[in-house]
Amino acid sequence: MYELGVVYRNIQRADREVADRLRAFGSATVHEALGRLGLLKPCMRPIYAGAQVSGTAVTVLMHPGDNWMLHVAAEQIRDGDIVVAAVTADCTDGYFGDLLATSFKARGAHALIIDAGVRDVKTLTEMRFPVWSKAISAKGTIKATVGSVNIPVVCAGALVTPGDVIVADDDGVVCVPSSRAAEVADAAAAREANEGAKRAKLAAGVLGLDMYSMREPLAKAGLRYID
Amino acid sequence: MYELGVVYRNIQRADREVADRLRAFGSATVHEALGRLGLLKPCMRPIYAGAQVSGTAVTVLMHPGDNWMLHVAAEQIRDGDIVVAAVTADCTDGYFGDLLATSFKARGAHALIIDAGVRDVKTLTEMRFPVWSKAISAKGTIKATVGSVNIPVVCAGALVTPGDVIVADDDGVVCVPSSRAAEVADAAAAREANEGAKRAKLAAGVLGLDMYSMREPLAKAGLRYID
Amino acid sequence: MYELGVVYRNIQRADREVADRLRAFGSATVHEALGRLGLLKPCMRPIYAGAQVSGTAVTVLMHPGDNWMLHVAAEQIRDGDIVVAAVTADCTDGYFGDLLATSFKARGAHALIIDAGVRDVKTLTEMRFPVWSKAISAKGTIKATVGSVNIPVVCAGALVTPGDVIVADDDGVVCVPSSRAAEVADAAAAREANEGAKRAKLAAGVLGLDMYSMREPLAKAGLRYID
Amino acid sequence: MYELGVVYRNIQRADREVADRLRAFGSATVHEALGRLGLLKPCMRPIYAGAQVSGTAVTVLMHPGDNWMLHVAAEQIRDGDIVVAAVTADCTDGYFGDLLATSFKARGAHALIIDAGVRDVKTLTEMRFPVWSKAISAKGTIKATVGSVNIPVVCAGALVTPGDVIVADDDGVVCVPSSRAAEVADAAAAREANEGAKRAKLAAGVLGLDMYSMREPLAKAGLRYID
Amino acid sequence: MYELGVVYRNIQRADREVADRLRAFGSATVHEALGRLGLLKPCMRPIYAGAQVSGTAVTVLMHPGDNWMLHVAAEQIRDGDIVVAAVTADCTDGYFGDLLATSFKARGAHALIIDAGVRDVKTLTEMRFPVWSKAISAKGTIKATVGSVNIPVVCAGALVTPGDVIVADDDGVVCVPSSRAAEVADAAAAREANEGAKRAKLAAGVLGLDMYSMREPLAKAGLRYID
Amino acid sequence: MYELGVVYRNIQRADREVADRLRAFGSATVHEALGRLGLLKPCMRPIYAGAQVSGTAVTVLMHPGDNWMLHVAAEQIRDGDIVVAAVTADCTDGYFGDLLATSFKARGAHALIIDAGVRDVKTLTEMRFPVWSKAISAKGTIKATVGSVNIPVVCAGALVTPGDVIVADDDGVVCVPSSRAAEVADAAAAREANEGAKRAKLAAGVLGLDMYSMREPLAKAGLRYID
Repeated sequence: MYELGVVYRNIQRADREVADRLRAFGSATVHEALGRLGLLKPCMRPIYAGAQVSGTAVTVLMHPGDNWMLHVAAEQIRDGDIVVAAVTADCTDGYFGDLLATSFKARGAHALIIDAGVRDVKTLTEMRFPVWSKAISAKGTIKATVGSVNIPVVCAGALVTPGDVIVADDDGVVCVPSSRAAEVADAAAAREANEGAKRAKLAAGVLGLDMYSMREPLAKAGLRYID
Repeated sequence: MYELGVVYRNIQRADREVADRLRAFGSATVHEALGRLGLLKPCMRPIYAGAQVSGTAVTVLMHPGDNWMLHVAAEQIRDGDIVVAAVTADCTDGYFGDLLATSFKARGAHALIIDAGVRDVKTLTEMRFPVWSKAISAKGTIKATVGSVNIPVVCAGALVTPGDVIVADDDGVVCVPSSRAAEVADAAAAREANEGAKRAKLAAGVLGLDMYSMREPLAKAGLRYID
Repeated sequence: MYELGVVYRNIQRADREVADRLRAFGSATVHEALGRLGLLKPCMRPIYAGAQVSGTAVTVLMHPGDNWMLHVAAEQIRDGDIVVAAVTADCTDGYFGDLLATSFKARGAHALIIDAGVRDVKTLTEMRFPVWSKAISAKGTIKATVGSVNIPVVCAGALVTPGDVIVADDDGVVCVPSSRAAEVADAAAAREANEGAKRAKLAAGVLGLDMYSMREPLAKAGLRYID
Repeated sequence: MYELGVVYRNIQRADREVADRLRAFGSATVHEALGRLGLLKPCMRPIYAGAQVSGTAVTVLMHPGDNWMLHVAAEQIRDGDIVVAAVTADCTDGYFGDLLATSFKARGAHALIIDAGVRDVKTLTEMRFPVWSKAISAKGTIKATVGSVNIPVVCAGALVTPGDVIVADDDGVVCVPSSRAAEVADAAAAREANEGAKRAKLAAGVLGLDMYSMREPLAKAGLRYID
Repeated sequence: MYELGVVYRNIQRADREVADRLRAFGSATVHEALGRLGLLKPCMRPIYAGAQVSGTAVTVLMHPGDNWMLHVAAEQIRDGDIVVAAVTADCTDGYFGDLLATSFKARGAHALIIDAGVRDVKTLTEMRFPVWSKAISAKGTIKATVGSVNIPVVCAGALVTPGDVIVADDDGVVCVPSSRAAEVADAAAAREANEGAKRAKLAAGVLGLDMYSMREPLAKAGLRYID
Repeated sequence: MYELGVVYRNIQRADREVADRLRAFGSATVHEALGRLGLLKPCMRPIYAGAQVSGTAVTVLMHPGDNWMLHVAAEQIRDGDIVVAAVTADCTDGYFGDLLATSFKARGAHALIIDAGVRDVKTLTEMRFPVWSKAISAKGTIKATVGSVNIPVVCAGALVTPGDVIVADDDGVVCVPSSRAAEVADAAAAREANEGAKRAKLAAGVLGLDMYSMREPLAKAGLRYID
């Protein structure tokens, strides 16, 4: 992990079909299916509402105020990838704008996840190129120092290994290890399977207290009702 | 106030008609009418723009990462209520999603105000179930420890007593003590009554300096003009 | 700069035509054209997406929780101005609402930039009066202490001198010194001139690595590729 | 609670002996004894390390940037009190310095707890007048608007009613309702009673796993050991 | 102000004697004497308690993660100066350590004020070289991009012009424009002159309410006492 | 990495002698020697000044508000270890106090690094058991949900693998992968070897500009001097 100045060209991507399948479940369900792990910090917000994506991670590690490696990463993108960019220290500069988005999109990227800032968000929104970032900033960056591409990185508090599946929507961003992607997709499907029935019951006024049989454990835990 | 593990079933709600009436004034006017008190901290933001609600408070106190009491609270909701949820320590987890929203809505809740995070915001937006929270997070919660329902709570810096009137819109969330709700509604109406005339004057180019007769007090306070 | 209680009536505004011309480039390009300087902190966010403005700065310095000087500033506004408001200490109160916006608009103001909070954001959005602020808050302010109008101020970390050109959009807010506005507009135009060609190349799959001839400097900087 | 412009002169203070007794337990033990409630947010830090105090609350509610009511509060202080100061909006100004500390000390105050800033901290430290605050700031305040003294206030997220017992040390600040002070002191004493024995065992290398019989519940909760 | 890549060698420093004289008053008194202006944000904290300094500002503007210009600044230091360092974007990296401190000290610098991070704080403390910073961080910086020395800068929210007087202590950091330094020193002396008498009265139990004749204005402002 | 409910008993610790040797260099030098990587975020602060430690990592992953796994971790501690504790969501609760410190110390732990809060800091300071944390809080935790011990964790933004070397002092906390520990110790020693000579030169007034031959590269980078 601790390497600067390297680009790994051949990474093991999670199965494309599984990655695609995870998209529909959304970040909350996938996070649960993964055992409530793998979530990036909630400061990571989409630049526009409604985007819902999944893809395999191409990772980037950069220095504060320096976006040189995003150009290096562009070449490593394959159709269906999501670029996950980390910075070695806290930085809100605008690392990414409409030109890089045009390039990433042309290479087949589904989205960018970046633990820093982006700019040209109006154009990115019109292009429908989704980005999750912790800031929006007009401040540009330089190209002076090399970082790395496709090494494991810590992005917004979560470890992301190249090839992992990223699922992102309005609720946030979750990283699924490629080795567990298929199993997590199955677990997510199982979770969703009976949600429709539950929703119908709740909509009809049935209480979660009864539907989930919570009254007894609550009483055991000491809950008292006072009139 | 200092009780864990209790649910008060019979609370004194503010008059429903008064609660309804306060909605139209919005949080800013109500906050002024209340003497510039009762406001929750501005970190409380709506999950979608444009919602404007009022209702009587059903309060919940929970532990970090544990949303068990939201299910308990659901049973206490009556038509026209707003659930106000506090946590005993800072937490951004997603305590609430579309299933609970379905249940709350079926019970007649107008909104949720929560000093923590929520998830499924895309679905909540489609359902038009408004939530004011300090975070959006896909991270789920457990159901392990009991808290309380319908005790006075401190939510985002404001004291909320069960039955108080909550008014929330794009500007924020304000809590009106039930004993003062009628008086505050009258004061808010009085404030609004002459706003139309003021707006027309200002739109015509009349200055607030003249309309509010500020020139003399400003001069007395020492303001000097330099050409 | 260090004066309280003064209003400068005659300020030297940047050329109106140049100020207008800068609008179309947007904050990111203008910031680059200025040598990556003059940006306000990224905590300054628009109250609604999509607004893009420029104008000459009328500055205001106020005390925390006191918006008296905004009324004083209104009189100094000329068509094409943008009011830039600073506070002597951190404050998120709602200094500005729909009545002041009506007045500012009637005087010809293009926008408000305020290092504090605003309210009535729903109405402001409907009026299409754009505001960049660091908070939205229903909390009103008092009118008790005088500040100053049209002195140099530090707003969200940037120095703004009366008459400077302000450019603001979804990416943020940048301040261009009036003495450099024409030169910056030319530099911004030059930057944009060849963006179309670059975008077309990138859209066609050409890599920035090649388009910008980065491969050699990257190798010199020590970047290694590993298969 | 929602009153501005009032000073309650006769408040019901918790028993002085009980308040004194709670001091020695410290904030962590008292917080546990109270059922893990009543804690102010951890942003409240002592201005110097090592102070440990208790006392009965005299409360103050002030406006941002205005410390007038601290002078009003001084007159209400009796020997053994702790002044608890809240502000109606977030503010880090230096509301309190060595002159007010001299006055408070002369009146018998044990400490100040303030959800804002203080200054003259070097002199306060030399005087050994302890303060817990969320900021240190040289910025002074004005005296323009009245607030209240001895009404219930929310200070750093906790409700404090006049006469409640405040316990503060390096770990933070806890508020004990006066009605529960005696009971909490007993519970805290019980907690401490067997801490000595536990500490000796742990120091001798006995594991908490065994001392607290945790192995079985951990196994039941699914914990697995892997060699 | 808007210049990168320049070093001004001949700056107009405030009178040394006046700068020295301001030290004893401390930041709070100087800030008041200046009309409650000129204060840096309270996030600027000393790396050790008890330091109290004044000096004339040598200013530095740097890029995030790049401390090259501190070496350039060292040459411009004269005995009695304080280096004031700003960064063009938020950054907490450790720009300064014991080697630079040795150099600054040898050149006669009294302190460093930096709107970023520093490191080697244990050694700096042993050397008694005082630093006010917003962070402490072991993370080092690169030397790749030029900034400027001795241009006006915005540091922690305050404008600092080369040659201004800086006063810093445990309460914070204040910047006094060189043109006003003598006048401010006199005003500060006048403030302090009668503080001793006030302190004695307050220590004897006289209330600020009486000493400052506040009872009548408070009553006029509507304050009511309730028994 | 993504496992909850497991305890790895046999981890590969870095060489003890190397871990010990790294202590004297301190976090800043080790961080540089590692290629400016491996640093935990600067919000991690020591509870008392002056501690300087190194040791091999025993890692813990816990849930917000739940410290059960610290007891499980205690059993895995060997002499010379440092416990590194991560939480699955942001939490400032006081996970650790004097009883656990007594146990950890008895087991041979050198320190605790925790991305959450601690309490009993006065006693911990008296015991000289050093802790680096992001908060101090009297708020206790529960023991309800299992996490893991000795899996790779992300702590304050850095990946820590069990057995890695941790170096911590007043400047912060750095994690050195066990595979690189010996090499980093050599690099750190080399860095330090010529620091003494440099320090002497700088103390004698030699400028870094000359000692590091910076004048030419600065001129090439465009730096201009103006008299």
